[in-house]
Amino acid sequence: MTSQNTLSHVNQHGEANMVDVTDKNVTQRVAYAEGRVYMSAQTLALINNKQHAKGDVFAVARIAGIQGAKKCSDLIPLCHPLMLTKVQIDFTTLDDNSGIGITAMCKLAGQTGVEMEALTAVSVAALTLFDMCKAVDPGMVIGGIKVLEKQGGKSGHWQRKEEQNT
Amino acid sequence: MTSQNTLSHVNQHGEANMVDVTDKNVTQRVAYAEGRVYMSAQTLALINNKQHAKGDVFAVARIAGIQGAKKCSDLIPLCHPLMLTKVQIDFTTLDDNSGIGITAMCKLAGQTGVEMEALTAVSVAALTLFDMCKAVDPGMVIGGIKVLEKQGGKSGHWQRKEEQNT
Amino acid sequence: MTSQNTLSHVNQHGEANMVDVTDKNVTQRVAYAEGRVYMSAQTLALINNKQHAKGDVFAVARIAGIQGAKKCSDLIPLCHPLMLTKVQIDFTTLDDNSGIGITAMCKLAGQTGVEMEALTAVSVAALTLFDMCKAVDPGMVIGGIKVLEKQGGKSGHWQRKEEQNT
Amino acid sequence: MTSQNTLSHVNQHGEANMVDVTDKNVTQRVAYAEGRVYMSAQTLALINNKQHAKGDVFAVARIAGIQGAKKCSDLIPLCHPLMLTKVQIDFTTLDDNSGIGITAMCKLAGQTGVEMEALTAVSVAALTLFDMCKAVDPGMVIGGIKVLEKQGGKSGHWQRKEEQNT
Amino acid sequence: MTSQNTLSHVNQHGEANMVDVTDKNVTQRVAYAEGRVYMSAQTLALINNKQHAKGDVFAVARIAGIQGAKKCSDLIPLCHPLMLTKVQIDFTTLDDNSGIGITAMCKLAGQTGVEMEALTAVSVAALTLFDMCKAVDPGMVIGGIKVLEKQGGKSGHWQRKEEQNT
Amino acid sequence: MTSQNTLSHVNQHGEANMVDVTDKNVTQRVAYAEGRVYMSAQTLALINNKQHAKGDVFAVARIAGIQGAKKCSDLIPLCHPLMLTKVQIDFTTLDDNSGIGITAMCKLAGQTGVEMEALTAVSVAALTLFDMCKAVDPGMVIGGIKVLEKQGGKSGHWQRKEEQNT
Repeated sequence: MTSQNTLSHVNQHGEANMVDVTDKNVTQRVAYAEGRVYMSAQTLALINNKQHAKGDVFAVARIAGIQGAKKCSDLIPLCHPLMLTKVQIDFTTLDDNSGIGITAMCKLAGQTGVEMEALTAVSVAALTLFDMCKAVDPGMVIGGIKVLEKQGGKSGHWQRKEEQNT
Repeated sequence: MTSQNTLSHVNQHGEANMVDVTDKNVTQRVAYAEGRVYMSAQTLALINNKQHAKGDVFAVARIAGIQGAKKCSDLIPLCHPLMLTKVQIDFTTLDDNSGIGITAMCKLAGQTGVEMEALTAVSVAALTLFDMCKAVDPGMVIGGIKVLEKQGGKSGHWQRKEEQNT
Repeated sequence: MTSQNTLSHVNQHGEANMVDVTDKNVTQRVAYAEGRVYMSAQTLALINNKQHAKGDVFAVARIAGIQGAKKCSDLIPLCHPLMLTKVQIDFTTLDDNSGIGITAMCKLAGQTGVEMEALTAVSVAALTLFDMCKAVDPGMVIGGIKVLEKQGGKSGHWQRKEEQNT
Repeated sequence: MTSQNTLSHVNQHGEANMVDVTDKNVTQRVAYAEGRVYMSAQTLALINNKQHAKGDVFAVARIAGIQGAKKCSDLIPLCHPLMLTKVQIDFTTLDDNSGIGITAMCKLAGQTGVEMEALTAVSVAALTLFDMCKAVDPGMVIGGIKVLEKQGGKSGHWQRKEEQNT
Repeated sequence: MTSQNTLSHVNQHGEANMVDVTDKNVTQRVAYAEGRVYMSAQTLALINNKQHAKGDVFAVARIAGIQGAKKCSDLIPLCHPLMLTKVQIDFTTLDDNSGIGITAMCKLAGQTGVEMEALTAVSVAALTLFDMCKAVDPGMVIGGIKVLEKQGGKSGHWQRKEEQNT
Repeated sequence: MTSQNTLSHVNQHGEANMVDVTDKNVTQRVAYAEGRVYMSAQTLALINNKQHAKGDVFAVARIAGIQGAKKCSDLIPLCHPLMLTKVQIDFTTLDDNSGIGITAMCKLAGQTGVEMEALTAVSVAALTLFDMCKAVDPGMVIGGIKVLEKQGGKSGHWQRKEEQNT
């Protein structure tokens, strides 16, 4: 991580700045992120019921999230293109039955971290769940999108502290 | 909106189903969505300070959001391709100084609504803000992504009720 | 259909030619296409078994096919961009148990036909099935990709004759 | 190749699974694939005649195939993004004058094989030939798409056996 | 055209502004643009000689230009997505043998003009010519990219005046 | 650089040829390119004035150029996909007040040079400036797009000679 006093992605003139990673080592990097889609109990029942049959709801969201992770540098202007070696997305029902939890894990052997890829995977999977349920529940809310942990690179291991979980 | 008992995006076999909009009328449609990036006071000060100079932080996030809206049907599998006629993205500092609020408005004259485009615009703008600040504040959280209002089409005017704002 | 003596997609100098559809009427158009993935009985059993559980094999191929249809004009240089209003993809086990049959239906209200979109949907779905099974059965063969029927536009209704089915 | 009893691209829960290649060695990999577009003798004469002039038919299909290979991981959900170092596409008239044969060769120095890229190159080149000839010959059939040979990686050299050529 | 005193693509706060075309009429629109690739006489001879054989140089550049036009709204942030109904690209040897001239024509029936699509087509075709010749002539220069004429829409017919040709 | 007598991107049959870089070493590569947008003094004043406020004109063009560099292999058919580690774009007012100068620098550690990426970055940034100003100045001209310098790889250091600056 850089100094707390400046933004790495803006230069001294306030202009957008793509960080130069040319000289960074190729190391194995992993990042974990999560997010949530809050929905009505009725909607939750509908998609969970489908899941137990052979419904494609989670399958579609999973594929969308994986494809979204691959598109990260096309979506986020200052992200470097990179070659993910693994993307995994999992869904759980939230403990209080308020909706669906989504976690994403991204890996590569490369010169830069993959937390933006993991966050993008979560976001696109969440948007896809929203799309598939919006006709019955337009009031859903997507939230709690954050990095849980990242490993690899010069900055080493970073893990979310409890108090950072809003 | 369809019946509360079935998901329009899954057929009777539980398979992914792209809704057929071939026969729907071309009408003017608008959707508004919002979202938030919660960050430390220090990070908020950094990007707002930049804003008052000529920093590109919000400009980059705005462009990313607009481009993200155009990519909606490429990101979300069952969304129809469509030709947005207007995308607008605005940023505000949240009242309690806990971060940045993002609103997006999408419009088109077409056969299907644009709330997924507005939600995608908000999500990509939020991810871009996260990317630009992550080196100083990796604990940020993206949340509160929801539809505020939509107009046009057979389902007419839908507006978020107060109690739906989580 | 044009005269049998010239190719519409090459001009009199032999150069690639995008057909001008500016003045064509907007009509409802539909196209049906099919294709097959021939595989070993063992592989077929593996994916059909998965299907009866809740395996994502067909779900992934279906989503890939739908997304592929949307990308048609990005893949095939002289295809016009257009806004599909419906894509549907179905899978069946071939009668002789030699593999999987894939059918795609594409629709839009527009100025040009959608048979290339349907063929692209079938092709990408077939490639995705191949990808998911290639570790156990690298000898699979994709074949029988053809248009079954198309409706709409100046050329009207076209249906495949029996003898055209190779 | 993995065991014949499980699909590498689906996990134990039947969910789509992107294979983790993070720890695989970077080795030089090559794959060869082929396919065919069956067409009427008249259509074949038209495009071959063009070829002898300076027609762009094969040039367009070749470029489409090369670009298609590069888009493989965008089309096929569980394919890893990778950086092809060479794509080559060749066309021949089939011995029995029943159509056009297409071969593709893809190479890279990377962590995963490139047979899906070669198959995608063949498929997109075939679809492009179809598109350019469809106005005169809508009954064409694309078939015989298969891997001929692959080299590199842990699974080593794989070559198609005669009896696998359907 | 708007007033000469403000930029339509920046709002009163200096922020990027996508022009709202929701209420504009759908009319037939055409735009013509041109550009040049200046090269050594030797390079020019090489590609023109190829052209007379059956070289793909111009075929590749033409396809790249057509595909580039379709990608305009993906490349230029404030451009609206639209559905081109015709793209045509032509190449000529410049009168003084200083290089290659490129012209592009784009058409659609839509709500906004297509001059950016024509300029993008010319630019991508020029870059592709550059790419194919750069190994023998890295000193080439691309220039003279400009709109020649546009028709359709509220602003009507605009034609380049002589003195505007730099 | 190859011999002056043949084009590396066309084979002996005149067919498009993607250069095989599989065996090339991974080295650090840099390329610099520049270009210009000629415009009226009035337009120049408008965008420079905006710049001094907090106008997004240059911010939008910078982002478009960076994103354009990443899309190079998608735009230019025979370019290899690669993973840029740095893209930088700068704008200056031309000495004679005739318009805006654009420079781009691209870097990577890879098997092939990045001059096409730098040229693409300049071209897309120029097109974006054109788009943002076209309503007030449709007669603008984009020109002077050329490589300034490249380093790395077998061909080593190449620098533009004075007389090559047209």
